Order: sequence, then C-alpha cells, then structure tokens
Amino acid sequence: MRLRDEILRGHGGRVDEAERLYPEAPTPWVDLSTGVSPHGYPVPAVDPEAYRRLPLGRDIAALAEAAAAAYGRPAGTALIPVAGSETAIRLLPLILGPRLRVGVVGRTYSSHAAAWEEAGAAVRPLPALPDPAGRDLDVAVLVNPNNPDGAAVARPALARFAEEWTAAGRKLIVDEAFADVAPDLSLLAADRLPDGVVVLRSLGKFFGLAGLRVGFVAVAERAAMPWRRRLGDWPVSGPACAVAAAALSDADWIATMRGRLAAERTRLEAVLAAGGLRIVGGTDLFVLAEGPAGIDLVDRFARAGILVRGFAHTPHRYRFGLPADEAGWERLDAACRSLAAAAAGR
Amino acid sequence: MRLRDEILRGHGGRVDEAERLYPEAPTPWVDLSTGVSPHGYPVPAVDPEAYRRLPLGRDIAALAEAAAAAYGRPAGTALIPVAGSETAIRLLPLILGPRLRVGVVGRTYSSHAAAWEEAGAAVRPLPALPDPAGRDLDVAVLVNPNNPDGAAVARPALARFAEEWTAAGRKLIVDEAFADVAPDLSLLAADRLPDGVVVLRSLGKFFGLAGLRVGFVAVAERAAMPWRRRLGDWPVSGPACAVAAAALSDADWIATMRGRLAAERTRLEAVLAAGGLRIVGGTDLFVLAEGPAGIDLVDRFARAGILVRGFAHTPHRYRFGLPADEAGWERLDAACRSLAAAAAGR
Repeated sequence: MRLRDEILRGHGGRVDEAERLYPEAPTPWVDLSTGVSPHGYPVPAVDPEAYRRLPLGRDIAALAEAAAAAYGRPAGTALIPVAGSETAIRLLPLILGPRLRVGVVGRTYSSHAAAWEEAGAAVRPLPALPDPAGRDLDVAVLVNPNNPDGAAVARPALARFAEEWTAAGRKLIVDEAFADVAPDLSLLAADRLPDGVVVLRSLGKFFGLAGLRVGFVAVAERAAMPWRRRLGDWPVSGPACAVAAAALSDADWIATMRGRLAAERTRLEAVLAAGGLRIVGGTDLFVLAEGPAGIDLVDRFARAGILVRGFAHTPHRYRFGLPADEAGWERLDAACRSLAAAAAGR
Repeated sequence: MRLRDEILRGHGGRVDEAERLYPEAPTPWVDLSTGVSPHGYPVPAVDPEAYRRLPLGRDIAALAEAAAAAYGRPAGTALIPVAGSETAIRLLPLILGPRLRVGVVGRTYSSHAAAWEEAGAAVRPLPALPDPAGRDLDVAVLVNPNNPDGAAVARPALARFAEEWTAAGRKLIVDEAFADVAPDLSLLAADRLPDGVVVLRSLGKFFGLAGLRVGFVAVAERAAMPWRRRLGDWPVSGPACAVAAAALSDADWIATMRGRLAAERTRLEAVLAAGGLRIVGGTDLFVLAEGPAGIDLVDRFARAGILVRGFAHTPHRYRFGLPADEAGWERLDAACRSLAAAAAGR
C-alpha cells in the first residue's frame, strides 16, 4: 500500500506502473495524472544533421530568440535554455548557494522543496508571499499559477513584491511552468526583471512536449554566467533545439490552443461536477477537485483505467488533466456518472 | 588573436565561428575539428508520442539494457543514462565531493580539470597513472583511450590499478568516450567494477550522434543513488532515449562501422604523412599529428575551408577527425599536397 501510494501520489505520468498495479483495468489507460496538454505541438521533421553535430552557438541563440518572442523578455534579461525546468530546479541550490533559508509558497510542486532540502537548506512552507520587511528568509519560491490549485498572484502585485524582496539581496524564484495559459501573469511580459529574480519556463505542459525536456531560466544578464557555466555549451540536444524553436515561433498555433484548452477546461469542470466532485481550482491545463470522504478516487478511477493524481497531504483532492480524445472523455464521464449513482444509492 | 585562438583551440565543432573569421574560405567547410564520427548512425523515425509524454521508467530501463548489451556490464554495476557525458563530467565534483585532490593523467580533454577546478578542487596533471601507494590524491582521472593522443592503458593493468587505488577509498574516473573503437580497453567488459570507479561512455563520438546528448555513467549499484537523485526521473529526453536504444542494439552496424573507421584512419594517416606531418597518435576516430615549426596549420587549413583542432599547450600539434565524404578527402589531400610543395620550395 505504501509503495502503491508512492507510485500513484508521486509524480504523475507513471502509466506503466499503474498498468502493473491494476492488470484488470481496461486499456489503453486514460492518463489524466499530469498537467501536460494532451494536444501536443505537431512535431516537425527534424534534420538528421541535428542529431549528428553538436548544437552550434547560433542554434542555441535562435532558440532563446524564439522564447523571447513567445514569452516576452524584459530589458537586460537572459533566457537560458535548459533540458527541462526540472534540471533548473535541481541546479538552483548549487547556483544560489546551498544552506539558505527558503520559503515555498503554498502546497505546490514538490521538487522545489526536495531540491533545496537535499542541498542542506532550511525549507519551510509559507501560506502566501512573505512580508518583504521580514528578515528570516533568503529565498522565496512561488509557482505562478500554482500547481495543483491554480492559485495566482497578479503581475503588478508580484512585480512590486519582487522589487522590494530582492532589494535586500534576497532571491525570488517564480516557476511559470503553467503560465502559457495565463500569460498576463508572467514576469517576462514586464519591462524589467529585478536582479535576484529567477523565472522558470517549460515547453512540457502547454506545448505538450514533456518528452522533449526543454525549458528556460530567465535571469538578469549579469546573473547569467553561473548558469551558462553549469549548463555548458550544449544545454539541450540538437533535435530538441529545433523542435522547441519551431513550437515557440508558431504564434497561430499558440493562440488557437489557448482557446481550445480554455474550452476543454470548462468541459472538464462540468464532467467532474456531474460526478459530485467539488471544483477547488485549476488552470486551463488541469482541474483540482475534491471528492467525498471515505472513498479513494485514485483507486476507483484506476479500476476504470483512468490515472488521476492524488496528494498525500490532502487525500480527498485530486488533480485531473484534460482527456486526449472523445474515448477518454467518455470513459471519464462514465466513471463520474457511476460515482454519482453510487453516492445517490448510499 | 586571443579571441580567435580561444575559438579555434577550445572545443571543436565551431564551424559557425570559423565561417565568420574566414569569410573568404570555400564553403561548405570541411569540419575535422571534432572526434565525432562523420558517419552518424542512421536515425530511425521517432514516434511522436516520445516527444509528448515524459519518458517512462521502462523506457529508461530499456536504454540501460541496450547499453549493457553493447558495452558489457560487470556484475552489480548500474548504467545510468545522462544527457551527454559532459553533463556527467560537470556533476562529478558535486557527487564525489568538492574540495578533493584530483590528478588528471596526461594532456587530455580539458573539461575534466575545468569541472573540478570550478568546484574548488586542487587539480594537478599526472604524467601517468599515479602510484597506488601514494597518499597525496583523492581522485584520479584517466581518459582511455586518450583524447587527443590516443594513449591507452590496457584493461588488465587498469583493472589491477583500479582495485589497488580504490581499496583505500580513493576514486577513479575513467572516461571511455572513444572506447567504442577500442572495446578491449573498456572496464565495462570486465567481470567486476570496483566500488569507487566511475566509467563514462558517450553516444556522441562513435555513433556520430553528438547532437543527441546521450551518455552513461557506470558505477557500482551501491554508489548509484546520488547520481539517480541528481539526474531525476527523466535524465534524457524521450526521442533521445528511443534513438540511443536503437543505435546501441544494432550490433551489425557497430561491427561494420568499426571496420570502416579503422580503414579510414589508415587513409587519414597516409594523407597527413604525404603533407609532411608526423603522426603522433590517435584512435580510429581521429589522428594527432605534428606540423612544421613556424607555421600555424589551424590558420592555413582554415583558409582552405578546413577546420582542424589546435592546442594552446602544444602549438604544432593538431587533431584531425575523419572527412565525411570524398569532397572532404579531396580538399584535405589538396591542402596537404600544397603544404608539402611549399615545404619543398623553401
């Protein structure tokens, strides 16, 4: 049971493990356990040369330019490609310093605390952004919008906080892994990024390219050197560089997909509500919902071949990603109806 | 001049910079500046799904199995995929400890010393493997066969040294980036790998997949946890995982390519010798040769649109990779003949 819980309530995306634990479930599984868009960017053909030669400086520079066009780039800010924002999260303690006092806002993506704790930092959860006049923290970590509850800090308020917080030499990490569906929140659309702010972006979620492992670290140019040294001359593979640059440059696809995901989120909330779940929050890439006490919905949905994400700290809350196709929507709809029927019969 | 030297004598593969420095040189350039095979593994079509979902545990396990089949795997040894062996080189000081006394054998790939120095280690060059009875080093680094001179330590001697050296708790790093063309040298073909030995492999050179950024760290299973924690659940991208597994499993291609590269090395040595260069060493992927004093061959070949690798510490030695095609061979042959004619005319 402990192993099963670790598998089903740790990172999402472990369909292979779920298949092993629930051999009788219908296949193929409907994987709603991640916040990765089911509508991945249509991957263009990759020039075989990209596999063969080392990525050139100009390839990496073109990727950063494409990111600047898609995300915005405050004056004097470097956008540094990394092999997935997870890589950046693990490097942060090495670059900012290992034994700092770190506050992590809200219940959020667990890798942030884990990376700092492993480096010997003192990590504590914060209910909200800390008082900028406080003296008991060196680093604040915010996921904006937050995963899994979708809580968000508006850009003007966050920009003001960032200025005050970093003025005393403190650091602010803003993980914008889901900001593609809420671009108004992003600090990268502001005119300037204070020294001491690190913004993380990811191609995995909105572009549905989780397997590509491409993300970005945005920092003031003058703070970029330690990142560049750690990451080396080839921070991402040649094919990943080409595919990511194509995706970020495709403004039409980005605009269309934002509309589509917003519509699908509305549909998902309706399906879950019809199953008797209470919608707690979310973004256009996932919904956080609360189920009835006394029922483990991770287990119940798994028996129906649907993988959803549970959380050890809030056992009756579940995160649902968007189904990929009508078959997925139908299976989820049937599972929710059966849940509502069982509740009515009790 | 200093900038030019840094560009042309640092890492190889900077054709874009060379084009800028020598705008009058014939194009396309013949890039002989790396040890990457010009005959890259024919990249199979990648399932678009591999771009979309996170690599699963079974994908990563299949990649490690393919590596074990290709390289060998001593009992109790973990083969851990990394995003290029450069990533492993940069992680080594973090995993083995930052302030160690490190000896690097021979003139070799500069990233080893650089990564340790950056981490605050005391690094010194060693003329050969150190005395295992010595007490003044914590870590020894050997590139086997060595880049750029091809110097090699035979496996039985190295295995004996590894046992003695690590018995006192010291570490041995063996970078086998070029061992695919000298498989008899590899410690991975031995029955056991002593605790404290770290072997690095790379898909970049022999398979000609430098853009793919895939390599492996081989360590005793009991020393694997810190690597796995640092690298996370997705150490390489999904597409890279699929392509690398296909390449490592293709035993026929591997055998045929070994024969082809050996023949081309012989041809390369003959072409360089006809140009009056003295062959100093090499592997089946590159040749190190010495040119006449008073002539900068990096510059001379660059004017002919041929990028070769020079070394700041030994200014009359040059590393030549294998040309990709007959046009490349012909341009190199012509440049060597003109060099010999100029020498005869002096």
